[in-house]
Amino acid sequence: MKRTTIYYNKKIKLKDPIMVVGLPGIGNVGSLVGEHIRAELDAKKFATLYSPYFPHQVIMLPSGRIKMMDNRFYCASPKKGKGKNDIIILVGDTQAMSPEGQYEINEKIVKFFKHLGGKTIYTIGGYNTSKNYIQNPKVFGVATNQKMVDALKKDNIIFGQAAGMIFGSAGLIVAFAKKHGIDAACIMGETGFLDVDANSAKAVLQVMSKVLNVEINLDNIEKIRKETNKMLKSLEEATKGQMGPGAEGPKDNFTYIR
Amino acid sequence: MKRTTIYYNKKIKLKDPIMVVGLPGIGNVGSLVGEHIRAELDAKKFATLYSPYFPHQVIMLPSGRIKMMDNRFYCASPKKGKGKNDIIILVGDTQAMSPEGQYEINEKIVKFFKHLGGKTIYTIGGYNTSKNYIQNPKVFGVATNQKMVDALKKDNIIFGQAAGMIFGSAGLIVAFAKKHGIDAACIMGETGFLDVDANSAKAVLQVMSKVLNVEINLDNIEKIRKETNKMLKSLEEATKGQMGPGAEGPKDNFTYIR
Amino acid sequence: MKRTTIYYNKKIKLKDPIMVVGLPGIGNVGSLVGEHIRAELDAKKFATLYSPYFPHQVIMLPSGRIKMMDNRFYCASPKKGKGKNDIIILVGDTQAMSPEGQYEINEKIVKFFKHLGGKTIYTIGGYNTSKNYIQNPKVFGVATNQKMVDALKKDNIIFGQAAGMIFGSAGLIVAFAKKHGIDAACIMGETGFLDVDANSAKAVLQVMSKVLNVEINLDNIEKIRKETNKMLKSLEEATKGQMGPGAEGPKDNFTYIR
Amino acid sequence: MKRTTIYYNKKIKLKDPIMVVGLPGIGNVGSLVGEHIRAELDAKKFATLYSPYFPHQVIMLPSGRIKMMDNRFYCASPKKGKGKNDIIILVGDTQAMSPEGQYEINEKIVKFFKHLGGKTIYTIGGYNTSKNYIQNPKVFGVATNQKMVDALKKDNIIFGQAAGMIFGSAGLIVAFAKKHGIDAACIMGETGFLDVDANSAKAVLQVMSKVLNVEINLDNIEKIRKETNKMLKSLEEATKGQMGPGAEGPKDNFTYIR
Repeated sequence: MKRTTIYYNKKIKLKDPIMVVGLPGIGNVGSLVGEHIRAELDAKKFATLYSPYFPHQVIMLPSGRIKMMDNRFYCASPKKGKGKNDIIILVGDTQAMSPEGQYEINEKIVKFFKHLGGKTIYTIGGYNTSKNYIQNPKVFGVATNQKMVDALKKDNIIFGQAAGMIFGSAGLIVAFAKKHGIDAACIMGETGFLDVDANSAKAVLQVMSKVLNVEINLDNIEKIRKETNKMLKSLEEATKGQMGPGAEGPKDNFTYIR
Repeated sequence: MKRTTIYYNKKIKLKDPIMVVGLPGIGNVGSLVGEHIRAELDAKKFATLYSPYFPHQVIMLPSGRIKMMDNRFYCASPKKGKGKNDIIILVGDTQAMSPEGQYEINEKIVKFFKHLGGKTIYTIGGYNTSKNYIQNPKVFGVATNQKMVDALKKDNIIFGQAAGMIFGSAGLIVAFAKKHGIDAACIMGETGFLDVDANSAKAVLQVMSKVLNVEINLDNIEKIRKETNKMLKSLEEATKGQMGPGAEGPKDNFTYIR
Repeated sequence: MKRTTIYYNKKIKLKDPIMVVGLPGIGNVGSLVGEHIRAELDAKKFATLYSPYFPHQVIMLPSGRIKMMDNRFYCASPKKGKGKNDIIILVGDTQAMSPEGQYEINEKIVKFFKHLGGKTIYTIGGYNTSKNYIQNPKVFGVATNQKMVDALKKDNIIFGQAAGMIFGSAGLIVAFAKKHGIDAACIMGETGFLDVDANSAKAVLQVMSKVLNVEINLDNIEKIRKETNKMLKSLEEATKGQMGPGAEGPKDNFTYIR
Repeated sequence: MKRTTIYYNKKIKLKDPIMVVGLPGIGNVGSLVGEHIRAELDAKKFATLYSPYFPHQVIMLPSGRIKMMDNRFYCASPKKGKGKNDIIILVGDTQAMSPEGQYEINEKIVKFFKHLGGKTIYTIGGYNTSKNYIQNPKVFGVATNQKMVDALKKDNIIFGQAAGMIFGSAGLIVAFAKKHGIDAACIMGETGFLDVDANSAKAVLQVMSKVLNVEINLDNIEKIRKETNKMLKSLEEATKGQMGPGAEGPKDNFTYIR
């Protein structure tokens, strides 16, 4: 594994798939949204991405088993809504630490999606506007073209207000999508400096329900937030001591979302 | 995109081109000078450089669109002055963070310029001599050969006084030019520790007007400084919160000059 | 040596080998256990791994000689116990500092072991649970499959309690073993924040004696701890001053176990 | 230049060459000794090594010219002493910052030397034993084999006392020499925490005069120390301000020895 590699867990055929990318990041909005949609749509894992640019750590599971860090592709054929597209959800444990790794991984994700016949990508992220908890978070967007901007504005996503930089996959996947002729947008939930901001994730989920044209039950978001918090805490405790040579210690923005 | 790549935006034919390189750096003198000349000469973009060594961020545009970080080549055929050379202006959002990236990108820029039939390169930078604002900034130079030193001295560029190191493209492009048999010089505006030093840029522009033998209207420099400042501020605010995993936070010397 | 390379010191034939990996890490439990088993079983060196991802340092030996940093493979055919497997012990001076290095080295180790006809791997590590010295350290485990979990539980290794991340070789070798169809487990001695925790190593050695089905005399552990401590101290003193350009200074978790 | 490259400045034929390596490092003992021997033997440059792993900076020369960072090979055929070997002196501006770079560069240096028919290498370094100025510095050594240890002991070099690690070229060149079947030793002058320790360099030069069997006039050492100090100071002042994007600022252990 000298390079980032995507392995199929099972071969599948997808109908005009749309991909939602929910990876660890600010306020863990991406992970929360991705994991929630995955659970609600009962999506099945079909491919796994490994990379030598991921942190050199492995995850201890409650079962006494072990897993390598990865990003995982799930797919679902939603029936609840009127959506006629299959939906791919990409979630994961981590992102690459270096520019070279980020560029390689994110272009590979876009090419793989294109190879699957994909049409549109939505990456999910958090967008910090305050140091405090935000009661009524807005949802911001940026997109690859004006058609997407116009369409997403109708679903109450605010364009032209978020400024600056998007770090990591949430931004680079959209940029590579543009390069490879795929429509894409980054949807960002407004957030303060919370580790796990379920309120922001909820706001994004309400919007994504319209965007994807599927029903997403929000009753479980509190449960997912609690699980995520628990996971984060046990992780924190463990990582306090569990460091070997070459380890740089736990990053504040590092999160394990199973 | 495993390697730094230059894409043509349109095919062009250039007459003995001279290149001015104005990338982000100390006091943003390079960016200010590059953007100003580009605007004044009404230069047109003809090529774009992308690199996996650039920071793994994408830029949110006021239009709600997105762009990958890049360096951009513009060309102009100035008529105002007596210059008979076409002029290429290289500006950009960023520079590579690692030695390997810097060496790869800057040699690629020089080879591309040589391939275009280029003869002479001027890189623009800032040169800090004080912690205070400098009222009457000097303009310093270093060059690949004595002929250039002699010629540039006539245009009031001071040689032999600046000492130490030049970091990044402003230095390495000149060094690679020397290796590939192209005349080159680095022209540095004296500056204090300002984020955007329009006064220093003005001094360089006055000199470059003579060097390039073109008229450069300096009335707009204040407007460009204001725009740059505004851009920098909005960027700063946004980047305060907009960081994902793997992000190292905004660098002081990082600048977005559109 | 552009890539990690394993050189044979002598050609050998091994009978269904089992590998114990004891590299520097938390509390140096891995190194202590690896070196102790190596000494007790009178194992012979048969292969050496070098890597350009190891720190750019060389080790001064008491003899006035010098050695490059490496990881070393030893083998033994234990007769004391009932074990019918040959045993490989992997010990070393260091681990790679970067993700790319860790991924390359650890997959290479697993592939080499597989090439030797290997069946099962045990990596040894420390697991911090406290900031204090731990009088009666527990031994925790994680494994690639349920069969191993069940078997190791019988030897008083606790599964399902250790949580979080395992950094470096102790984790990645187990993960790559799983990928390449080899049974593997990481056995971790509970430890406080000691540089060299012989008490934790002793607890692991008692367990490993059962796991490997060989007698391991524990009388010498105190001697090995002392030697290790002495080595560490002399190293510390020396490294205080012995740094050249590019050196990042001695890491707390860096250890030289000869 | 994707890889470290050595260019010939002129083709030469050498008689059983011995190489002395004096690169920047602790107390700049290596650089001082290398530059002094080069000057005293009136050695001529015949090859230059460039690397994309060197810091991404270029050096401004007092002449208003510019140079890329490099390591330089000089050769001399000493007549003053009884030495019948040609002598190569390797000096330079910098060393690589990363393990990958250090491994690549130093193996390339050893292979180049072997290709030239080289027999023996002496790398020069500093060895810190105190935080204070050392009046009567000792000279320590480590070597690739016992024959060299025995021979160098006769020249008052102390073996078996220096312990710990040697960072960078001074150590890795000796280790790679061993791998490629070339005799080598690292000769270290005892030093305190001085930027430029001429006293330590003097002690090493006295020893090296015997080792190389050439007369080395020490009258000029004070002159060289002064020049080096001046160079360092002007460098420091310049680098205070002269930083661009991607620059990490001047390292304490970074030195420009022309």
